[in-house]
Amino acid sequence: MSVLIVGSTALDSIKTPNAENPRLLGGSASHAAVAASFFGPVKLVGIVGNDFPKKYLQLYRKHRIDLSGLQVQEGKTFHWAGEYEVNMNNRRTLLTELGVFEKFTPHLPDTHKKSPFVLLANIAPSLQHHVLDQMSRPKFVVADTMDLWLNIALEDLLRLLKRVDGFVLNDSEAHQLTKEDNVFAAMRKIHKLGPKYVIIKKGSHGSVLSSPQGFFICPAYPLHSVKDPTGAGDSFVGGMMGYLANARGPLEANLRRGMIHGSVVASFCCEGFGLKRTTGVKRAAIDQRVKELEQLTRF
Amino acid sequence: MSVLIVGSTALDSIKTPNAENPRLLGGSASHAAVAASFFGPVKLVGIVGNDFPKKYLQLYRKHRIDLSGLQVQEGKTFHWAGEYEVNMNNRRTLLTELGVFEKFTPHLPDTHKKSPFVLLANIAPSLQHHVLDQMSRPKFVVADTMDLWLNIALEDLLRLLKRVDGFVLNDSEAHQLTKEDNVFAAMRKIHKLGPKYVIIKKGSHGSVLSSPQGFFICPAYPLHSVKDPTGAGDSFVGGMMGYLANARGPLEANLRRGMIHGSVVASFCCEGFGLKRTTGVKRAAIDQRVKELEQLTRF
Repeated sequence: MSVLIVGSTALDSIKTPNAENPRLLGGSASHAAVAASFFGPVKLVGIVGNDFPKKYLQLYRKHRIDLSGLQVQEGKTFHWAGEYEVNMNNRRTLLTELGVFEKFTPHLPDTHKKSPFVLLANIAPSLQHHVLDQMSRPKFVVADTMDLWLNIALEDLLRLLKRVDGFVLNDSEAHQLTKEDNVFAAMRKIHKLGPKYVIIKKGSHGSVLSSPQGFFICPAYPLHSVKDPTGAGDSFVGGMMGYLANARGPLEANLRRGMIHGSVVASFCCEGFGLKRTTGVKRAAIDQRVKELEQLTRF
Repeated sequence: MSVLIVGSTALDSIKTPNAENPRLLGGSASHAAVAASFFGPVKLVGIVGNDFPKKYLQLYRKHRIDLSGLQVQEGKTFHWAGEYEVNMNNRRTLLTELGVFEKFTPHLPDTHKKSPFVLLANIAPSLQHHVLDQMSRPKFVVADTMDLWLNIALEDLLRLLKRVDGFVLNDSEAHQLTKEDNVFAAMRKIHKLGPKYVIIKKGSHGSVLSSPQGFFICPAYPLHSVKDPTGAGDSFVGGMMGYLANARGPLEANLRRGMIHGSVVASFCCEGFGLKRTTGVKRAAIDQRVKELEQLTRF
């Protein structure tokens, strides 16, 4: 089944100690949509300016991503520039030019309104609400977020949590939201805010799911070096939702395997700048790493 | 089979934001020996002063730990006092009184010299060498360490790494030793220093084994709160060695299951001050958490 993905579509200029890569294809929806595309059809909703490179539209199309919900407007595409420190854990923003993204209102084409699986990738909670307002009874809705919205749009976010099935955030955001250092204690508090499924991302330490059936500890695929972690979290949740939308059988088991597949797509994402490595990956290479993760965790 | 454990035997005074516990039974060898005792016979080698409380000797005996290698000398038992911050991750040392430990030389009774499994728990590398000098062809030797020895006895430690099968250290120590942020890259470098088996402990994020057969990603048992993490790493490696010494079949599979069992014993350790919770645990409770970890990681 198709998965609907709404989020940011951007140009990322990324600096690391070893390299500088200007105006790469980026944004939460771009990473998530490409990741999901390995598992089945994807509908992307976002906005770009008329400066958006044609080669990036071709890249979306190469992944058979439905672009009928991508708005192209007069003006500049959202442009983010950031710099990573040597250890790749800390990054600082050098530049944020919102461009056409500043006035983005996600409009869903009629074909999108009945999508059973919905990923509200990282954008303002008010826009995530606006997407749900247009939907007709989706089967499974997951929202991602970032620290910015916890700081400036917490009320909107808290209202959103009552409308979604799953909520994905990283460990520092979970701490910010709940004041709990312990991820398991934090997840318990987040359930009380609404979501039945809570996933906390811990970067190279993997991720954890808390669900009605208990916890699932999901490993990260072991990488010896990371070129660029930008978009890894979006790739994780995108891959997870893409897998989930196309799997048969019980939800909980599929969600676990979805996290594993998302974790693998995220590992490819980290191996190249922007989407460079991810877009060169074949499904067989993903399945191979999933098999390796089975071996790596068996006891 | 029996496991020989050599390390520190101490009194720990532990302060947390919520409580203060003076003169608990502590030290690397105490935690490791109690943890190993759940799986089979343990020989402890260490030193205490004549102020060492009788109740702690009884505690060792309750765990059927062979104390023929425990030296009792005129003077004070090694006393360490430390304080944890609210998040339980950072601790600072308030006091270190070495007492009789200052002149400790581990002497192995003849019965100990042929022990097939040896855990050199955290003590000075020169003492770890001295233990190996007395051994006759042990089957499997694992050494633990701490940042102090990387700072003041690096040469001794590097020589030791050529004499052991396995080396256990935490992620920050691995970084200090190899200058690598990435644990997998760090393990590759540590293999080149000698050990065939390298285990990096990552606290609540679990641990990772690197062996000739590849990596194993070992989860930590999920805890909602941690009372006192002192000795968790020693419990982990002690439990692992105790399990390993008493398991049949291929080493690698046993090492993986040993890490899982060690991880579970470490989780109990964190649930009480010092050894209070661990010493109240029954084998069945350990097996139950091992089963839960199987569930928690299955996909």
